[in-house]
Amino acid sequence: MSTLKLNIVILGAGNVAWHLAKELQNKEQNILQVYNRSEKEARSLARRLKCDCTTEIEDLNQNADLYILTVKDSVIEEVSASLNLKDKLIVHTSGAIDQDVIKHKRRGVFYPLQTFSKKKKLNFKGIPFCIEASKSEDYNTLMRLATLLSPIVYNINSHQRKVLHVAAVFACNFSNYMYMISDEILHKENIPLDILHPLIKETASKVSSYKPKDVQTGPAVRKDKEVIDTHLKYLKKGKNYDIYKLLSENIIHKNNDEL
Amino acid sequence: MSTLKLNIVILGAGNVAWHLAKELQNKEQNILQVYNRSEKEARSLARRLKCDCTTEIEDLNQNADLYILTVKDSVIEEVSASLNLKDKLIVHTSGAIDQDVIKHKRRGVFYPLQTFSKKKKLNFKGIPFCIEASKSEDYNTLMRLATLLSPIVYNINSHQRKVLHVAAVFACNFSNYMYMISDEILHKENIPLDILHPLIKETASKVSSYKPKDVQTGPAVRKDKEVIDTHLKYLKKGKNYDIYKLLSENIIHKNNDEL
Repeated sequence: MSTLKLNIVILGAGNVAWHLAKELQNKEQNILQVYNRSEKEARSLARRLKCDCTTEIEDLNQNADLYILTVKDSVIEEVSASLNLKDKLIVHTSGAIDQDVIKHKRRGVFYPLQTFSKKKKLNFKGIPFCIEASKSEDYNTLMRLATLLSPIVYNINSHQRKVLHVAAVFACNFSNYMYMISDEILHKENIPLDILHPLIKETASKVSSYKPKDVQTGPAVRKDKEVIDTHLKYLKKGKNYDIYKLLSENIIHKNNDEL
Repeated sequence: MSTLKLNIVILGAGNVAWHLAKELQNKEQNILQVYNRSEKEARSLARRLKCDCTTEIEDLNQNADLYILTVKDSVIEEVSASLNLKDKLIVHTSGAIDQDVIKHKRRGVFYPLQTFSKKKKLNFKGIPFCIEASKSEDYNTLMRLATLLSPIVYNINSHQRKVLHVAAVFACNFSNYMYMISDEILHKENIPLDILHPLIKETASKVSSYKPKDVQTGPAVRKDKEVIDTHLKYLKKGKNYDIYKLLSENIIHKNNDEL
């Protein structure tokens, strides 16, 4: 098989574009152009990639093999509809949006399942890519492209991707929110969150070897009402009180269901 | 300062005793005896430590320097009250229980802030120890003992420890419960949780460098009502629906408060 060398246009200049476009370039792919509505971000990413940029859809380079939409979920449909491209492969990178909101014949999804922040460097080799395409040749191209970036590539259709996204909200966004509440609670007592880092890391690392259900610990799974009540009394009526109560009740019930 | 060499009796034979007693022995401390109400566990741990064991409080070795209560939170008070020991240092290892439930003059707390499972080996060097004692000489002894096991030792009083425990429930027990819900959701679609491991690890590792508040991602913090509604529709009415709704609302409100 010949070496893959695609001409690519990146649409959007946010966190995903920032890391993904650079990594594609590192893997010898040719980024022709960056499009972004706001000029400042377009220029900033184009500088990083040493490529052309534009803020006008009409000025889009027509000669790429692949157009990657990294724009916000809410505008993927609108931006893709505005593309006047003939027989070009157009993909988005979103976990939440159906492939079919792209109304072009050759469409697909190139979804890196990771949380991106501009400032935090990422090792792409650890990122799972979820691939989908309307045509099998395009699917194969996207698979080859993803495999350049990471050994973990999944064939995931739009329904599965949506489910995956819901699961990721729990595993990532909500677990981070739990850390945020911890930080808030400790902050009031002048205790740094550092003290919980080893516990947070150990808890997260356990999922590699055990099912989360089998390593659930704490007062709720032990049905230790006394400790739960002490904790609720401390949290008093407040937002964190409601969360503690609901999660503890659910852990207790889930455990009862199995008895 | 002379080398620390304590004679220790361990009360309880659960997960904490299993790991802590062994590690104390590895650090040249002398485990004289294991006490446990159930003989099977007492014997099993005594075999691991190659020491004496008993199921009777009356047969407790009276000559130790330190008695470590690793029994369940709910029986710490009762077991410590049944100890007929004169002028001996008695500590418990619980995050939730006040030092003062131990009604002996020389009392303290030796709390390893980590989640323990018998089967999972732990590196003690990464475990924070939270120390408290009624007398300053005993506090110094416990500090020296903890420092043998780990470089991370904190002076934490009973009130702070209770708060820490509440925070740990969020950071550890509840984040693990979020993983459990993810697993449940993916299982229904025959997608293995493996696909989320990199995301879970990255999310947990971010807390070492950033405040959780500054790296919160996902539909709720973006106030992306459309995605939130799609997710809620998928979860329909059910236990996970309620959790998704409450957490998303809280993330949105917390964000509004700051504007």
